Amino acid sequence: MELGWTLARVRDVLGGQLHGPEDMVVERFCRLELARANDISFVREVRYVEPGVASAAGALIVWEKQEAFGDRPQIVVPDVMMGLLQLLAVLNSERAEPIAVGVHPTAVVDPTVELGDGAAVGPLAVIEADAKIGARTQIGPGAIVGRRASLGEDTVVHPRAVIHHDVEIGSRVIIWSNAVIGRDGFGFVPTPDGTFVRLPHLGTVIIEDDAEIGACATVDRAMIDETVIGRAVKIDAHCHVAHNCRIGARSMLAGYTKMAGSVTIGEGCLFAADASINEHLTIGDGAMVGAAARLRSDIPAGESWFGYPAVPAGRARRILAAQASLPEMRKLIKRIAKKLDIDLPKPGSS
Amino acid sequence: MELGWTLARVRDVLGGQLHGPEDMVVERFCRLELARANDISFVREVRYVEPGVASAAGALIVWEKQEAFGDRPQIVVPDVMMGLLQLLAVLNSERAEPIAVGVHPTAVVDPTVELGDGAAVGPLAVIEADAKIGARTQIGPGAIVGRRASLGEDTVVHPRAVIHHDVEIGSRVIIWSNAVIGRDGFGFVPTPDGTFVRLPHLGTVIIEDDAEIGACATVDRAMIDETVIGRAVKIDAHCHVAHNCRIGARSMLAGYTKMAGSVTIGEGCLFAADASINEHLTIGDGAMVGAAARLRSDIPAGESWFGYPAVPAGRARRILAAQASLPEMRKLIKRIAKKLDIDLPKPGSS
Amino acid sequence: MELGWTLARVRDVLGGQLHGPEDMVVERFCRLELARANDISFVREVRYVEPGVASAAGALIVWEKQEAFGDRPQIVVPDVMMGLLQLLAVLNSERAEPIAVGVHPTAVVDPTVELGDGAAVGPLAVIEADAKIGARTQIGPGAIVGRRASLGEDTVVHPRAVIHHDVEIGSRVIIWSNAVIGRDGFGFVPTPDGTFVRLPHLGTVIIEDDAEIGACATVDRAMIDETVIGRAVKIDAHCHVAHNCRIGARSMLAGYTKMAGSVTIGEGCLFAADASINEHLTIGDGAMVGAAARLRSDIPAGESWFGYPAVPAGRARRILAAQASLPEMRKLIKRIAKKLDIDLPKPGSS
Repeated sequence: MELGWTLARVRDVLGGQLHGPEDMVVERFCRLELARANDISFVREVRYVEPGVASAAGALIVWEKQEAFGDRPQIVVPDVMMGLLQLLAVLNSERAEPIAVGVHPTAVVDPTVELGDGAAVGPLAVIEADAKIGARTQIGPGAIVGRRASLGEDTVVHPRAVIHHDVEIGSRVIIWSNAVIGRDGFGFVPTPDGTFVRLPHLGTVIIEDDAEIGACATVDRAMIDETVIGRAVKIDAHCHVAHNCRIGARSMLAGYTKMAGSVTIGEGCLFAADASINEHLTIGDGAMVGAAARLRSDIPAGESWFGYPAVPAGRARRILAAQASLPEMRKLIKRIAKKLDIDLPKPGSS
Repeated sequence: MELGWTLARVRDVLGGQLHGPEDMVVERFCRLELARANDISFVREVRYVEPGVASAAGALIVWEKQEAFGDRPQIVVPDVMMGLLQLLAVLNSERAEPIAVGVHPTAVVDPTVELGDGAAVGPLAVIEADAKIGARTQIGPGAIVGRRASLGEDTVVHPRAVIHHDVEIGSRVIIWSNAVIGRDGFGFVPTPDGTFVRLPHLGTVIIEDDAEIGACATVDRAMIDETVIGRAVKIDAHCHVAHNCRIGARSMLAGYTKMAGSVTIGEGCLFAADASINEHLTIGDGAMVGAAARLRSDIPAGESWFGYPAVPAGRARRILAAQASLPEMRKLIKRIAKKLDIDLPKPGSS
Repeated sequence: MELGWTLARVRDVLGGQLHGPEDMVVERFCRLELARANDISFVREVRYVEPGVASAAGALIVWEKQEAFGDRPQIVVPDVMMGLLQLLAVLNSERAEPIAVGVHPTAVVDPTVELGDGAAVGPLAVIEADAKIGARTQIGPGAIVGRRASLGEDTVVHPRAVIHHDVEIGSRVIIWSNAVIGRDGFGFVPTPDGTFVRLPHLGTVIIEDDAEIGACATVDRAMIDETVIGRAVKIDAHCHVAHNCRIGARSMLAGYTKMAGSVTIGEGCLFAADASINEHLTIGDGAMVGAAARLRSDIPAGESWFGYPAVPAGRARRILAAQASLPEMRKLIKRIAKKLDIDLPKPGSS
């Protein structure tokens, strides 16, 4: 991205030490692969030093001074990712384009809606009766907020997100485009004629402060109480939180994490992408779950699990290693059986 | 959820027998874990009796009188889930807030559209030329109905759902927010230069009476005939039904069930979440498919399959059990080979 | 679908040879299973000859004349799928219903937007400041185009798609309903108190000419440079392209293909549905990936991989075969151990 800053200014924003000329101007801030001689890039760990050497970047942000970069200007910061965050935050605030405060004339806002100071409602948004929109909260173009839904302060609802009736959303929450919050949970009662009758869902969804819900993600309404997304939980695109689930504070769910009903996830858990979680399971605080894991049992607090089905990581690694050598295992067993003159069992006989 | 009813009233709605005071008022209807002394909760099976004992709930709905609950008031109903359904239905009808009958002034409805008696079109919905909307059908805020699409009676299209041209939808169908019905199927013809040319899709989608399509689910249009969702089929959020698929009546597909083109699913099938189904497969009537199953072959009627790849359930359980013990199997084989003085095969040599 | 054409007309459109009466009229063009005596269907490979014999279709399109069909009229074309494409293209152009050229009065288009000749903006679409819409490009009802986004010529944005600010989209691109292009990537920095702080994403998304993005698919914005969807890439419904990923020209990703950040996919790759790809992986040109594959390592150019985890196809087939026989392997090993008087290892002892 375009920068056009002196190294001194970059250093000042990052709060680090500059080894190199203060007045050198870096035109862009780029990934190592894309950087040219007038650009600055970053090297955040040992494993990126070699790509850093290969990069044409004219200056580098590093976590400690690297001999390998020779004369190239370096800015040393204690935590490169934190430095990056500060740099991006400054650039972002320079470019921020919030929706104009007030209600766009094409939005459809019921007269009973409470709008906080500085709240902004974009074109063609719909806000239904008795909803509450907190101070400085932004409702993007085409977003929908249902009856009696309440949103806190400084929350951002991106274009076309749908928030159904009675949902409670905290402050500083981000809801991305095409997310659907508060659909009735997928609950039915079987009848004697083989059809299923929908269970009305009269509960709701609570999303606590500082949480984020990704694009095309869905959070279903509880049957009689609440589905809860805890404080500062980050949920990626395409995830699904079913009815009556509860996700503890600060947990992070990468894309396509999906759970059946009444799952309880502790605080500070990490899910890599595409995990599937059976109903009623409990995942303990601080648990870590690998990508595409298939959860069929509870996970104790602090443990790391993965696999299909998921098991503790150490065990999963051994199973995977054995699975990778299955063809040779099979061959060896046949040779042994032959040597011992034992008949092979027929498939399906065990 | 708030109730404020006497136990007598709860009993009358459930149609059961009350063991306890008729005039006791229960303030809320809650899950066992959340219930307090003035609340009523439910215990639907033996496995919930222990949590019932632990719960603070002041009264309980049960399937037969439980000694374990001592003096606590109990309402006995033959089928707790059916009772629950009746209770929720009564509460739901008390709270129902249908969209106002008629066309909201901000909706864009082509003059050629046929609107049945009591139909309702919400704010900023779009209904294109020659579409037909049956009696009492509700088109939510921001929903789109394409040209010549037809919807039956008492159907509900939730906010922001998209129904493309010519799609045929029956009566009492529910389409959830951000579902997309009638996208052109993902069909291309490869060309000699390595690119793919889109096959126009001139077929359509038929969704029969009493079906439900979940939030962010997609149902693709057939190339030349129809993709069919049968009567009373229930499809959960994030599912995908590809072009030319046919799903038999009363089947239920939990979240992220996904299928390639021309799959045929029988009547009364059950798919747990996240199954993936190869193209052209046939799943027989009444088949059951486990969570995250990977279907590579047909399933005969009435069978239960799961696994990666999916196989009949009994076989899948044995494979899973063996897989879980793979590290020990591997160790044992090595010991045997050593004892017999047989060389281990090299990886990849089989 | 309805046709009502003479066989001569069908032949002329397909450019093939007719064996049968020129003046015979075929009422519909159908799949083999649905065709009746007045309909025409198609048989594109040897494996469909038997279903063709069983079909009631009155005429058949074939790749070479089939004795098996006896006296039934046949139209022989060198490539049945290409013929089909021509036929469907003709039918499609007869029925095309583009959005009316110009801006619908209910659309909200900023005065700074540049609209090319023949561009069309549907009802209730929103186009924000400084966006550019190329000649003959169609913005469907309710679609959103953010600030400074640019779209080329003859591109089609279907109803309710969301294109965020600054995204660059080429010509002849198709974006389906409820796709979300340009969400901020799922990138956070952990803080000492255990929460995650959002990294502002100041990069963008580039979608090159002739690409297609499916319904409910999401393509995330890069942190500082670009997420790139190459020329003529076809992406199906429910796919996710994370921040900083790059997909080479002509690659095809079937439904639910999902990738973590900074994945590089070469040109001409094919992904069957539901693959999951770890971050930073590189997939070589022309690689093929099987359905529901779980990618944990790079794939060299031209290779075909599948499985959980994915390995080269030949190896994957051998592992699957051995896995399918695991119960018998286990039984055999126990018998061998018994015969040799070796104790079985305890679970978890390896």
